[in-house]
Amino acid sequence: MPAKALPDALADILGRVRARRPLIHHLTNWVVMNDTANITLHAGALPVMAQAREEVGEIAASAQALVVNLGTLTAERLEAILVAAAVANQRGIPIVLDPVGAGASAWRTASALHLLKERRVAIIRCNRAEAAALLDQVGTIRGVEDVGRDSAEERLTLAQHLADRFQTTAAITGPRDVVSDGKRLLAVDNGDPLLTTITGSGCMATTLVACCAAVESNGVLAAATALAAFGLAAERAAQAARGPASFKVALFDHVYNLGPADLAAGARVGWLHRRES
Amino acid sequence: MPAKALPDALADILGRVRARRPLIHHLTNWVVMNDTANITLHAGALPVMAQAREEVGEIAASAQALVVNLGTLTAERLEAILVAAAVANQRGIPIVLDPVGAGASAWRTASALHLLKERRVAIIRCNRAEAAALLDQVGTIRGVEDVGRDSAEERLTLAQHLADRFQTTAAITGPRDVVSDGKRLLAVDNGDPLLTTITGSGCMATTLVACCAAVESNGVLAAATALAAFGLAAERAAQAARGPASFKVALFDHVYNLGPADLAAGARVGWLHRRES
Amino acid sequence: MPAKALPDALADILGRVRARRPLIHHLTNWVVMNDTANITLHAGALPVMAQAREEVGEIAASAQALVVNLGTLTAERLEAILVAAAVANQRGIPIVLDPVGAGASAWRTASALHLLKERRVAIIRCNRAEAAALLDQVGTIRGVEDVGRDSAEERLTLAQHLADRFQTTAAITGPRDVVSDGKRLLAVDNGDPLLTTITGSGCMATTLVACCAAVESNGVLAAATALAAFGLAAERAAQAARGPASFKVALFDHVYNLGPADLAAGARVGWLHRRES
Repeated sequence: MPAKALPDALADILGRVRARRPLIHHLTNWVVMNDTANITLHAGALPVMAQAREEVGEIAASAQALVVNLGTLTAERLEAILVAAAVANQRGIPIVLDPVGAGASAWRTASALHLLKERRVAIIRCNRAEAAALLDQVGTIRGVEDVGRDSAEERLTLAQHLADRFQTTAAITGPRDVVSDGKRLLAVDNGDPLLTTITGSGCMATTLVACCAAVESNGVLAAATALAAFGLAAERAAQAARGPASFKVALFDHVYNLGPADLAAGARVGWLHRRES
Repeated sequence: MPAKALPDALADILGRVRARRPLIHHLTNWVVMNDTANITLHAGALPVMAQAREEVGEIAASAQALVVNLGTLTAERLEAILVAAAVANQRGIPIVLDPVGAGASAWRTASALHLLKERRVAIIRCNRAEAAALLDQVGTIRGVEDVGRDSAEERLTLAQHLADRFQTTAAITGPRDVVSDGKRLLAVDNGDPLLTTITGSGCMATTLVACCAAVESNGVLAAATALAAFGLAAERAAQAARGPASFKVALFDHVYNLGPADLAAGARVGWLHRRES
Repeated sequence: MPAKALPDALADILGRVRARRPLIHHLTNWVVMNDTANITLHAGALPVMAQAREEVGEIAASAQALVVNLGTLTAERLEAILVAAAVANQRGIPIVLDPVGAGASAWRTASALHLLKERRVAIIRCNRAEAAALLDQVGTIRGVEDVGRDSAEERLTLAQHLADRFQTTAAITGPRDVVSDGKRLLAVDNGDPLLTTITGSGCMATTLVACCAAVESNGVLAAATALAAFGLAAERAAQAARGPASFKVALFDHVYNLGPADLAAGARVGWLHRRES
């Protein structure tokens, strides 16, 4: 695909979300439940947040994508996740996984790995530390932020390894977001540092990835659309923000107002060559 | 009651909420818990969101109204709801039911119908699809929005059927809100389309209905007060909104600032003749 | 400590929160989970909200302070709280308790007292009614607000009794916040009445107390820093607020923007003489 065509392809995917209004079933954490339901609506899709074992299979079957977010995980929710994810796999409904807190506890990491072993996940959206934990590289990455280190390079390597190991598309976000399906590599440079000052910005990005995956089977393009749109909305929101809370209000407004033409003009995305590692 | 008197009656009810500060016990979903606690405070009432089986009976007994909201229902919460609702029934505390997601799964619909069979509900606040599901008319209504169809007419019929079937007051919201206790019919035309772009606007309306039901035993007037006040606040909030999130901030501010005199002047409410169906 | 030194001491503590970015583990209620995670980040610390019995011990062990908030308590969460609090006690990690709703039900009060009996709590942050309930003085305090009564005096007495009874530091908030460790008494006069119009303002204050307790072992000074900073941010937020929701957005922005020098200049704090009671 020529470089010129990429922003247009993303704009087309965003337009499809708005036109089709896909239903996005979330099995997600309590902290971000309100925010991710809202951002689903603002993106043009429809949220449903049902969690009960008694109904998650039926709800998942009616959705066009399933978000599995492991924040504030409980044993009961993990059980419901496995039920919903089985239905999604049977019906070809894409699962987008956010392994929140992988590496923060042995149980959380093991739960994420169990899910990845038992169910097919279309896209993993996570940060560098979570990716490293899933790849059992916790020791080299945990702790404070590695200032002065080439993190984008490290995210590239981790994304490729995640994609290879779990036969999935991996989207690792940071100052530069990287996306890989094991064959292709893509980078997104939209975003703003204020995203790190609010809770759940990663979870919001994951929700937008699912909105796009519901209308686009190419996982790399779906993730790139969501991350570029979210980053572009953040750039616009940052302009008038007086702090993290007014930034968040503006971020949500801009996600709602961002049209396909805005994305075609403002997306800073590009293919990268696969690096040997 | 003459037409002139209706807005004044609603203003009087709103004034009583502010003066008496009733305690509103919510057994509600995780998505809207923060928003509905806030809107209870902004309306002048006091929220309590206790959910544990061990205490819901005692908490409900101290409240002036009980909100039962079935969003993100679990088996544990349903059990707690039945306990709290039994206490409310014994003590004459009005229950306001929001059957969120009735029709979305067989279990959710059955749970709502079980509650309606076992406990007396003073007011049901829902949308058209949920009303249809409770009346086992899912097939005619589910799916995409019926563009070009007279939805207000359909809501009128559904409200009357709900009221008759469950011996309750039914408030079905939409571009025109309709309220019926089976004998009287009332319409509220306040509101703004931006309400459909945020999650939980229906749940917020339900909470306001409960705030009014706590101080007014006539369910039709209580629901009309809440829906007119909420719709009027939405109209004001929409004027300066730059998107759904700034709209929501302004909506909450306006619910707080809306006085009885504002409601008397701005409520667009009226009695309708009962239609044979 | 001379009077002049007190604001400077608080500014130094706030600066340490910003510099060290302590990890604050919250076992908290669903209503405020998003708000308290955000305010932790805005203050410069890092939140983690893990709740599952399977991991709370490991998570608590990695934190610098543990918030235990009893709002929307369930039996399962109480069990997880006891596990996490045991680990915190073993490792000397300070526990900050918010006994939300003590006095609202017999079970809630008993749960708070059970925790206080079984685990060591560094700081209790609560309101007057909750303090009275923990001291079994419910009858003299519950019900409507005692207009015309010297509430600050009553809070002083309650703080001293709480500190003595539970060998802790007690911070009781109100128009004048009071803090006591049983020997010393301190008052904070920052704040704004709009704090009473939003849900969770007490929970937010508790979270900030924990952020400070993570970097300062003197509980009275840690609590004073948090309450002065929160109250000062509220004073600034109130200036342009158009209602409770725009106030809350501005409050969060100001918590983020408030620097140590702002606190040194704006803190209205002072030592009081211990009163015999």
